[in-house]
Amino acid sequence: MIQAKGYAAQAVNEQLAPWNFERREIGPHDVQVEILYCGVCHSDLHAIRNHWFPGIFPLIPGHEIVGRITAVGPHVKKFKTGDRAGIGTIVDSCRQCYDCQSGHEQFCSVSPVQTYNNLDKAGQPTYGGYSNTIVVNEDFTHHISPDLNLAAVAPLLCAGITTWSPLRKWNVGKGHRLAVVGLGGLGHMAVKFGVALGAEVTVVSTSPNKEIAARELGAHHFVVSKNEEHMQSAARSFDFVLDSVSADHDINPYLALLRTNGTYINVGLPPKPWEVSSFSVVVGNKAITGSGVGGLQETQEMLDFCAENNIVADVELIDIKNINEAFERMEKGDIRYRFVIDMSTL
Amino acid sequence: MIQAKGYAAQAVNEQLAPWNFERREIGPHDVQVEILYCGVCHSDLHAIRNHWFPGIFPLIPGHEIVGRITAVGPHVKKFKTGDRAGIGTIVDSCRQCYDCQSGHEQFCSVSPVQTYNNLDKAGQPTYGGYSNTIVVNEDFTHHISPDLNLAAVAPLLCAGITTWSPLRKWNVGKGHRLAVVGLGGLGHMAVKFGVALGAEVTVVSTSPNKEIAARELGAHHFVVSKNEEHMQSAARSFDFVLDSVSADHDINPYLALLRTNGTYINVGLPPKPWEVSSFSVVVGNKAITGSGVGGLQETQEMLDFCAENNIVADVELIDIKNINEAFERMEKGDIRYRFVIDMSTL
Repeated sequence: MIQAKGYAAQAVNEQLAPWNFERREIGPHDVQVEILYCGVCHSDLHAIRNHWFPGIFPLIPGHEIVGRITAVGPHVKKFKTGDRAGIGTIVDSCRQCYDCQSGHEQFCSVSPVQTYNNLDKAGQPTYGGYSNTIVVNEDFTHHISPDLNLAAVAPLLCAGITTWSPLRKWNVGKGHRLAVVGLGGLGHMAVKFGVALGAEVTVVSTSPNKEIAARELGAHHFVVSKNEEHMQSAARSFDFVLDSVSADHDINPYLALLRTNGTYINVGLPPKPWEVSSFSVVVGNKAITGSGVGGLQETQEMLDFCAENNIVADVELIDIKNINEAFERMEKGDIRYRFVIDMSTL
Repeated sequence: MIQAKGYAAQAVNEQLAPWNFERREIGPHDVQVEILYCGVCHSDLHAIRNHWFPGIFPLIPGHEIVGRITAVGPHVKKFKTGDRAGIGTIVDSCRQCYDCQSGHEQFCSVSPVQTYNNLDKAGQPTYGGYSNTIVVNEDFTHHISPDLNLAAVAPLLCAGITTWSPLRKWNVGKGHRLAVVGLGGLGHMAVKFGVALGAEVTVVSTSPNKEIAARELGAHHFVVSKNEEHMQSAARSFDFVLDSVSADHDINPYLALLRTNGTYINVGLPPKPWEVSSFSVVVGNKAITGSGVGGLQETQEMLDFCAENNIVADVELIDIKNINEAFERMEKGDIRYRFVIDMSTL
């Protein structure tokens, strides 16, 4: 086994603290990655608090992982020692089911393995990226261009692909009006991608003071969702609404922003069910859809697009000793737009 | 003015009874149609009972109208006297707005005019097809092939286009698995269209005794929605679910039938709001959508497709004197699959 160190919660709701653990030996198709940076995703907080389901403790979060290859198994073809590498939310799947075969390994119906808080095929817990090293099958490892700022690439592995995937699925681009609701880790990536894909992008936010930030990211327009006049004049005007807000909220005002054939895309995953009338979708042939991260191929496509278009996340680099404080700030929305842990501080 | 006769409700909840009224004179772009048959839609019942909004009384329902042109205005180009003609749910719109320009006149944002229970641009009430004659702008009048059984064409003008439009929008066809929920006026048309478009069609129904009827319509498979084993083995297996049930019901079991990227299409318009978790669409990138009748061009395309493929509705012809009894039977679901009034009985 490979000795590793990281920051773990020893039990539900406990603070993260240093912990030594073991990674599996490098298999024939595995790469070992020295983790240089890891993004801090809201899911990390949900996990250590059992918000979605009971966690597997000790729990090391982190699924926005970037680093450098330090060793490769004998059958590895894609990577060599010294390469940059990225790992996202999944580290294995069955490769055989309908979803795996159609490029949606994240929805594998047989044996999907999450990067942390899950059991791998050998029945061992998976540990995430708040650590110094990780061993992963090369197929679940992505190439990262040497041209991009590596720390700012980390959030692309979750926040990036989560917004990229639906924009591509729905062919959002030139001639489309896209509204991005919420300007956090996901929202700010949606604005960057929407603009780069050629859409006319409007940020919709509860707080008027986010307008400058929205325009700095490239947004063409700004709508305050609490301002009824704003919302009224924006009614029936968008082809797409991408809603990145993770707190519970009424989605009906956002459906009203869609024109005929418009599509509402949820990536925020608010916990409580929505209440939606059938009339909201029947009148105007509208669609309510959602999207969960992305498959392996589209993740690499997104990373390549970012390299070509010089897109990365806007990040605030933190020392791993300050992770618990960062969680508190994240909960308050006090972050532009993603914390990334500098793993050299471990 | 043109003297006309029909069956009207004089006030909310009253029974339909004979009533003489006036149609407008034939304008330059108008055609006059002798109504030969009119389908009986559930909306007709909703209207005379103020289920959706307060009605305009006296109220003559009917928006599945077929007949023969008896006169044309001087500028009419599409029709001549003696032609077959069909009129659906709308008889006018602004022709200028985004929706009209993009072929969705039914969602006109300026001045859509419903075939009945509405005011026309001159501020006069519109009266539907439970009558002997109607005057309509030629653009809102459709050609009907002489090869089709005219009485059985009537329901195509609402039930037909309502199911056709989403199947075309979503390109349902070869290689797709389509589940049709509910086997009434809309559902039986969805089965016929789905099969004709090349999809593998499954009927999902609460009642096991509908299986024979479903297979007679061309359905390849049958699932009893109250049978948990059936539903379990059908989970994650459909590309599309078209839900035609108008009564309130939980849609979550039907979302579970969709595979990744699957689309749930509602055309039943149940009155109460749905309760849906964001996870139901995010996991599997699913979509919940709806569809409301169809635009002018696609209505004609549907009628032409029906002529080419010899598709009509399965109807039970009734005497207009029995319309109130037919409403009662419709409420009980005691109909295969659409009542059509033989207007020679008026």
